[in-house]
Amino acid sequence: MNLSDKVINRLTLYYSILLGWRAENITSAQIAALLRIDASQVRKDIKMLDNVGVCKVGYPAAALKKSIEQTLGVGKAKEAFIVGAGNLGTALAKYDNFAPYGLNVLALFDNDPLKAGRIINGKEVFDISRLSDLTRRLKVQIAILTVPREFAQSVADLLAASGIKYIWNFSPSILQVPDDVRVWNENLVGNFLQFTINHKD
Amino acid sequence: MNLSDKVINRLTLYYSILLGWRAENITSAQIAALLRIDASQVRKDIKMLDNVGVCKVGYPAAALKKSIEQTLGVGKAKEAFIVGAGNLGTALAKYDNFAPYGLNVLALFDNDPLKAGRIINGKEVFDISRLSDLTRRLKVQIAILTVPREFAQSVADLLAASGIKYIWNFSPSILQVPDDVRVWNENLVGNFLQFTINHKD
Repeated sequence: MNLSDKVINRLTLYYSILLGWRAENITSAQIAALLRIDASQVRKDIKMLDNVGVCKVGYPAAALKKSIEQTLGVGKAKEAFIVGAGNLGTALAKYDNFAPYGLNVLALFDNDPLKAGRIINGKEVFDISRLSDLTRRLKVQIAILTVPREFAQSVADLLAASGIKYIWNFSPSILQVPDDVRVWNENLVGNFLQFTINHKD
Repeated sequence: MNLSDKVINRLTLYYSILLGWRAENITSAQIAALLRIDASQVRKDIKMLDNVGVCKVGYPAAALKKSIEQTLGVGKAKEAFIVGAGNLGTALAKYDNFAPYGLNVLALFDNDPLKAGRIINGKEVFDISRLSDLTRRLKVQIAILTVPREFAQSVADLLAASGIKYIWNFSPSILQVPDDVRVWNENLVGNFLQFTINHKD
């Protein structure tokens, strides 16, 4: 199934609702009201999923949750390192909404010797010099990059040389990487401008 | 002009490149290579903008930068409070890529008495009890919500009652707010899943 970014985004939000849902069934109107979107949009998205029954009282919540899990690949564990143990790296290491989606942060890295050895939310901070070795030995493919702008490119070079294949880039730098490495720019200011320019409900 | 989210996102990335660009001209191929997208896409986006000349050596960088500024409303100052002075709130208060886009964080708020009075990147942390008064007096409309999940709804209620009109929600909670308040869910895990599901370059 080829899902558009917007559909993936909405499915993730439906899943967030289902994680805290206690009733047996849930209606498209209930989901739509919480997210302030059209119920017809919710029904259209759910229609694309496999194995979700529908009855007069709505969708069975457990089946819907399971189907979204399969569609989003939530079950498949994705292991990642956070590179940069500053405030943002620390916040992401503590963020409690990654694990339900299968994203498992194994450790953090930083170039500050004072930070090495610290434990953040059960994850150890290693000196950056350990990155290549640990990436190879643990076969980690995903790095979450949270270093300051001025270090972003040199750290990206190190990540690529260490075998990292996906860089989730939170720094406001445009990175240059080899062809076999994919970069997702977490363009925070772009997200914000989308929100304020298009005053959509 | 009604811009799609994807166009706004790309324009923001072009603007990021231009902020650090030193040459007089820039070509669509140069922008495309940095972002690993099609040059034809870059040309199409720029064609929509006003007042950007084009010549054999590319676009004049200064005119392109100015035109994107006008299109994105970068010049218009947008004042915001950060609510929650934990790691994420602190990281966002220190983030150096908001100011170039006109987003000005005035202060932070927290319910921890030990944090009140701290200065983060030149911005004071106030006790949450001061929020309503300061929102009204400074006419701030935007709140960046970075409190833990379990406090998100009660803080959103306070924000709405205080006159905040836009909530940029970094907590993984679905918020219920009055009709005149708009919420943008910064769905980090959704962004991540878009990246790993659709392995697009």
